[in-house]
Amino acid sequence: MVRRIVFGLVAAAAMSGMVAYTTRVSGQTGGEAAPVFGVELPAGYREWRLISVAHEEGKLKDLRAILGNDAAIKAAREGTLPYPDGAILARLAWNYEPLAESEKAFGRHQSFVAGAPKNGVQFMVKDSKKYASTGGWGFAQFDDGKPAGEAAHNACFACHTTVKDRDFVFNRYAP
Amino acid sequence: MVRRIVFGLVAAAAMSGMVAYTTRVSGQTGGEAAPVFGVELPAGYREWRLISVAHEEGKLKDLRAILGNDAAIKAAREGTLPYPDGAILARLAWNYEPLAESEKAFGRHQSFVAGAPKNGVQFMVKDSKKYASTGGWGFAQFDDGKPAGEAAHNACFACHTTVKDRDFVFNRYAP
Repeated sequence: MVRRIVFGLVAAAAMSGMVAYTTRVSGQTGGEAAPVFGVELPAGYREWRLISVAHEEGKLKDLRAILGNDAAIKAAREGTLPYPDGAILARLAWNYEPLAESEKAFGRHQSFVAGAPKNGVQFMVKDSKKYASTGGWGFAQFDDGKPAGEAAHNACFACHTTVKDRDFVFNRYAP
Repeated sequence: MVRRIVFGLVAAAAMSGMVAYTTRVSGQTGGEAAPVFGVELPAGYREWRLISVAHEEGKLKDLRAILGNDAAIKAAREGTLPYPDGAILARLAWNYEPLAESEKAFGRHQSFVAGAPKNGVQFMVKDSKKYASTGGWGFAQFDDGKPAGEAAHNACFACHTTVKDRDFVFNRYAP
């Protein structure tokens, strides 16, 4: 909704010869910004298309999905790096749970499915100027829709430098 | 594209007072139909939104995602059962692979990610009249875009009766 309104405003401004700029064009909600990178929860991210899926063991113990907005999906599919400004990746995660019906049928753990949301929802927002010192990416985590603390945000970039040659993105598009 | 054209035709027919009907309204490609249920590969299914994710152990050993067309997403989110006619669920699956960068960083298996496509792409198509004898669902599997054999299709319904009380659908919407 916010996106639609903002696009409308931009279109109106363009028609009247004005120059319009707002960071909300990228689809952010205007909610409370997360610390460090100042990223707001992107509007409608649960409607985005799927890039890939993953499972984390150990303490994280979750099933996760990576979604991308239109710019991110295009770049991920075409494998063009770096991602363009405006690209946003969303990492959703859920509790890692054995499926009872499957366990009953097989007599052992066979299928693991997504339970309740877990480990927050994380975002990578590409803005090569604003986030020049962190590879062009701003990082954010939201727990139950609220920004996580500063410590959580300070850890992101260091870990993502492991995949610097893939524009700091761990996942690859799953066809 | 096919969908857009068909919707255009339906709209045109409606305006001119004609009655139009075609099974392609559900978004099927008109490609080779899979055996038993006669389901064609749905067009543009990789653009559909995410319902949930899962991991299968044992022989299947994959990471998977369930996507849904608009009708399926709506029903899955609202938890309204049975799914309405026209709902289509897609099950994609990929090889279950440890992420090398993560293994290096943690010194052990930590992250498992989607590798190459595996175990085909499967669909459940809701048509309560056409598929009345199988809970209103038609089942299909495509391997590399080609319909799988008859044996693969004869196994679907028996297994899905395990979750008859959830309209024969194993997955639940992951928020």
